[in-house]
Amino acid sequence: MSKFGMIAKFTAKPGERDALAAILLEAAAAMEQVHECELYIVNLSESEPDTLWVTEVWSHAEAHAASLQEESTREAIQRAKPLIAGVEPTRLIPLGGKGLESLNPDA
Amino acid sequence: MSKFGMIAKFTAKPGERDALAAILLEAAAAMEQVHECELYIVNLSESEPDTLWVTEVWSHAEAHAASLQEESTREAIQRAKPLIAGVEPTRLIPLGGKGLESLNPDA
Repeated sequence: MSKFGMIAKFTAKPGERDALAAILLEAAAAMEQVHECELYIVNLSESEPDTLWVTEVWSHAEAHAASLQEESTREAIQRAKPLIAGVEPTRLIPLGGKGLESLNPDA
Repeated sequence: MSKFGMIAKFTAKPGERDALAAILLEAAAAMEQVHECELYIVNLSESEPDTLWVTEVWSHAEAHAASLQEESTREAIQRAKPLIAGVEPTRLIPLGGKGLESLNPDA
């Protein structure tokens, strides 16, 4: 089964970027318990003050879909929603590259 | 020193996506020798047939800048250029998240 990737661009409401980043970092910490989540990095944009980017790699797309149904994920989304002006998710198929195979090698 | 991230969206000329992906995967393979390059993943877009996304993590921004001056990188860029309709690079500051610290932990 091929891996699954996601890049999500979050635009926070003015002044809310750091509060949104904190919720996304909490979600990232919760992913430590989710074996099929191989990478979940929260990034600031260097140039856009209200923008955050999350880059994800999953063992397969179904695990990503299942995580969105988890109670803890839904609760985090509810807390994040008032801070968010927009989200642009992009679904990806990772082809290869440095670091990809060493992520979660026993998955 | 904080880590550095990059997301680059490549739009290939029609019919050239796979040839461009091959060059990007060659570049990713060359990064195995570049200690400061911690992650360099080449991804297909699920929905956009001419689009590739590269997600990168570097130990610091200077190492990324230096890699662009390497002869092998410049040669790859010259070969890729005729295949590319557009590139949108986004410079990032990785804040944290699952997998980030386990990338290249001795850097």
